[in-house]
Amino acid sequence: MTATDTTSTSPDWAQRAAAKRAARDALLPPDTLLPPGTVPASTADVSAVPRTCGLLSAQELEITESDTGDILARLASGQWSAEAVTRAFCRRASIAHQLTNCLTEVFFEAGLARARALDDEFKRTGKARGPLHGLPISLKEQIGVAGVERSFGFVGFLGRVCERDSALVEILLAAGAVPYCATNIAQGLFFGEAVNNVFGETVNPYNRTLTPGGSSGGEGALLALRGSPLGVGSDIGGSVRIPAGHCGLYAFRPSYGRVPYEGTCNSQEGQDSIRSVLGPMSTSLAPLRTLFKAVLDGAPWRLDPQVLRQPWSASGAALAEHGGGERLVFGMLLDDGVVRPVPPYARAMAETAAALEAAGHAVVPFTPHAAAEGMRLFYESFGADGMRDLFDTLALSGEPRAGPHAAQGQGQELSVTQWWALHRRKGEYLKQQLDAWNATAATTGTGRPVDAVICSVAGNAAQLLRQPQYHTYTHWCNLADYPAVAIPVTHDPATYANAPIGLQVVAQKGEDEAVLAMAEIVDNALKAHSASTPR
Amino acid sequence: MTATDTTSTSPDWAQRAAAKRAARDALLPPDTLLPPGTVPASTADVSAVPRTCGLLSAQELEITESDTGDILARLASGQWSAEAVTRAFCRRASIAHQLTNCLTEVFFEAGLARARALDDEFKRTGKARGPLHGLPISLKEQIGVAGVERSFGFVGFLGRVCERDSALVEILLAAGAVPYCATNIAQGLFFGEAVNNVFGETVNPYNRTLTPGGSSGGEGALLALRGSPLGVGSDIGGSVRIPAGHCGLYAFRPSYGRVPYEGTCNSQEGQDSIRSVLGPMSTSLAPLRTLFKAVLDGAPWRLDPQVLRQPWSASGAALAEHGGGERLVFGMLLDDGVVRPVPPYARAMAETAAALEAAGHAVVPFTPHAAAEGMRLFYESFGADGMRDLFDTLALSGEPRAGPHAAQGQGQELSVTQWWALHRRKGEYLKQQLDAWNATAATTGTGRPVDAVICSVAGNAAQLLRQPQYHTYTHWCNLADYPAVAIPVTHDPATYANAPIGLQVVAQKGEDEAVLAMAEIVDNALKAHSASTPR
Repeated sequence: MTATDTTSTSPDWAQRAAAKRAARDALLPPDTLLPPGTVPASTADVSAVPRTCGLLSAQELEITESDTGDILARLASGQWSAEAVTRAFCRRASIAHQLTNCLTEVFFEAGLARARALDDEFKRTGKARGPLHGLPISLKEQIGVAGVERSFGFVGFLGRVCERDSALVEILLAAGAVPYCATNIAQGLFFGEAVNNVFGETVNPYNRTLTPGGSSGGEGALLALRGSPLGVGSDIGGSVRIPAGHCGLYAFRPSYGRVPYEGTCNSQEGQDSIRSVLGPMSTSLAPLRTLFKAVLDGAPWRLDPQVLRQPWSASGAALAEHGGGERLVFGMLLDDGVVRPVPPYARAMAETAAALEAAGHAVVPFTPHAAAEGMRLFYESFGADGMRDLFDTLALSGEPRAGPHAAQGQGQELSVTQWWALHRRKGEYLKQQLDAWNATAATTGTGRPVDAVICSVAGNAAQLLRQPQYHTYTHWCNLADYPAVAIPVTHDPATYANAPIGLQVVAQKGEDEAVLAMAEIVDNALKAHSASTPR
Repeated sequence: MTATDTTSTSPDWAQRAAAKRAARDALLPPDTLLPPGTVPASTADVSAVPRTCGLLSAQELEITESDTGDILARLASGQWSAEAVTRAFCRRASIAHQLTNCLTEVFFEAGLARARALDDEFKRTGKARGPLHGLPISLKEQIGVAGVERSFGFVGFLGRVCERDSALVEILLAAGAVPYCATNIAQGLFFGEAVNNVFGETVNPYNRTLTPGGSSGGEGALLALRGSPLGVGSDIGGSVRIPAGHCGLYAFRPSYGRVPYEGTCNSQEGQDSIRSVLGPMSTSLAPLRTLFKAVLDGAPWRLDPQVLRQPWSASGAALAEHGGGERLVFGMLLDDGVVRPVPPYARAMAETAAALEAAGHAVVPFTPHAAAEGMRLFYESFGADGMRDLFDTLALSGEPRAGPHAAQGQGQELSVTQWWALHRRKGEYLKQQLDAWNATAATTGTGRPVDAVICSVAGNAAQLLRQPQYHTYTHWCNLADYPAVAIPVTHDPATYANAPIGLQVVAQKGEDEAVLAMAEIVDNALKAHSASTPR
């Protein structure tokens, strides 16, 4: 699945892309290559292949299938070496890549060298480097790592190598993390899949006829196959939450200015109205908090002038403004009035409501403020340059537009006056939306507004590739800068066979620590309910 | 000084403006009107007139010349009634206005009614309403107050009355404050004076041939004459710090998103790159902190979606990241390499350095990062619409452009692509600037970067009216979102006779609480040094 054949008659851009893919794949450890025929191309569900293919040792399986928190504990105690853990994940990532085409850059050797250095340091000092000591971390393609090529999925950017680490990577390294690979993206990060002309298309490991979601879709597929214990994606419209939802994972979209974006590239750079944020993705919830807290404890405002001088809030994490987490009131957003989510989400919402009530919390209906206007504001902002930045970048190599909007051409760009008018409209909308959420205080019975909102991660489940999607259920958080945590809830048994179904827990702007704590409450309630309820 | 004569041949806009000024002046209490000839138009220094004119009682003089902290204490203890305090400031404000043309809206009666209500409440409950109980507060013209006209100094906006309070006013009212007047501004807030076609020109009470600075120049003149104990201005390029410096006052420019701007109007609304912020101005430093803390304690994020969920930081105020305030290292920015400030600033800087060293702190030279490029970024952002918003507003009434740039016409506006490119350049610049400031840690001897920077509030002192000015010494804080406190240091004995000379204390982004504490250290050092040094 990893490469498209190109012939000598392919245009130059296609040949350059094919050469890049071949160079990438040449970096996979030879003893992790799946023998031809191991997994027929027609096999849809490949989620068990890493375990069953026979290429991983018992210890590698134990490491890669452990909870990330347990891995960190064993690394910190010296029970597992950083090298052993890193090697296990590199090997499993290679297998995951062969199954789903999830990787863009393979720098396993650099990761292993760093792991060995950490092990040496540990032997010398007896101490872990930091809260992420020895943990391999996968990074979305756009995040700068010194010495690693960053084409951002554009043929025209092939050959660009980062001279220095991004601010996030600098902090992760200081915390002991081990970057070892980069993961696939939507072209320009503009849609909820993971396909571009350099690296091709990533598919969903639960059903390879479906998308893993995007734009951080490479992370989604890699993490779902446990080829990584913890990844970092970016989210400007749902790009960590959608692949988390579609791949059965957890993801966190922080508020603007908490996690440093400096040294991370993007499309439409300088578009500072709806800002992309970096956020963690993993197979359980606690690692999201661990990474977020490690970043804040690294004082990221030292490195990135856009970051807020706002350390980890212990009172936020303790839900001080939410009654300490006792008897929370969750607003259930079932339907935004524009597009009702597909039926599996209604079932997931009902299960979640029952679980929360069983745990002593309350659920009430939640109506979003003027969702159609929010959607217009989002898309008008996104399309403000008529996609000129994208088309200019495509023109560097002659490559075509990729993804579900491939047939759409360039539009008119706005003037500054029009752009400022759009901001002004957005400002008025956000004030009305804030007032509407706060007005729920009159009906919750706690004196507080609805503590958090629960909604689907999309209108659709993981879709067939390149099909229309509806993402206003994530966009509204980006427009309002609401922090949100995606959690996996169930699977679709029917229409989109085996597709994971995820929900989001959404809190008000700046409540990052609180939304992580409330998502944990929801996740624990679901697990307790699931354990006690016959299915 | 308050009104320009208009004849029947004046254009319509001039007649409408004259009618507005006449209506405003008709609201001044008749028994506060200066008899004709009391102060000849040729009298430059009118700073003593409120005390000497005989219109204010001994108690009114005592109230209005008390330190604002003492006034708050006496209000909170019931020693002074809110009504007596409000009446004294209304009466003195009327005199200040007649001397400098500083007011735009006169709502003394509403203020007095509110003061009486607070007094009734105090009698009933024995408790002050909040930290600003009974304190009259003056507000820059642009800040929305329910029921008060807000023309923003444009003839075309005359007759617009605010339907509701701005978020700031809502919080100030809840804290017990008494809004009673609005103050004059630069047309569109675009320059460092206070003149527009509706309200005319405000002059400096220390020398009426000079500007009070701006754009919050009405606040500057009013506060300098003690016609207000505490005011709120706005600052997008120095607009609270310049008039504070030119009028011998204190002012605070907070970081973005701490003080709510919601319900406050501005030019170029939706220009979210260099954001205007509201900040307090007063005759001493402590009231700036009192107001700022009162606003944060009012949880402004409930009311304004642009506000950060960032409560008052006690550790910031305690200078936890600055060695507890012991042996600070101040960087002295004497010359930005583009325009060297006029000589009185060099003297003020030297006095301040000596005072700080005498107090056990260290001073080192500070070179700003690429000031000329910062200046270009600032003006390119400000002029991105070719001043179309301003000219469109002027066209509503046919009024002309006012102020030092009156002769400049409309320019080309940028496209969104150009605007985003400017942002990107700004982002790169700010990263270099952050790194440069942090690199000073290698030379301070404390292991910390320079704790704060001290520089002039402008290249020029208070200028003759409508003369060229140089404001990059304030702009750099707006570009980088540095919080800054202006403090008065000395007076110019010569060139600009009697003009106050002020400096700024500037800290890194988000260090609002810390910069207030460090400014207090500077202010106390200056006072102690001045008391111990023969002059």
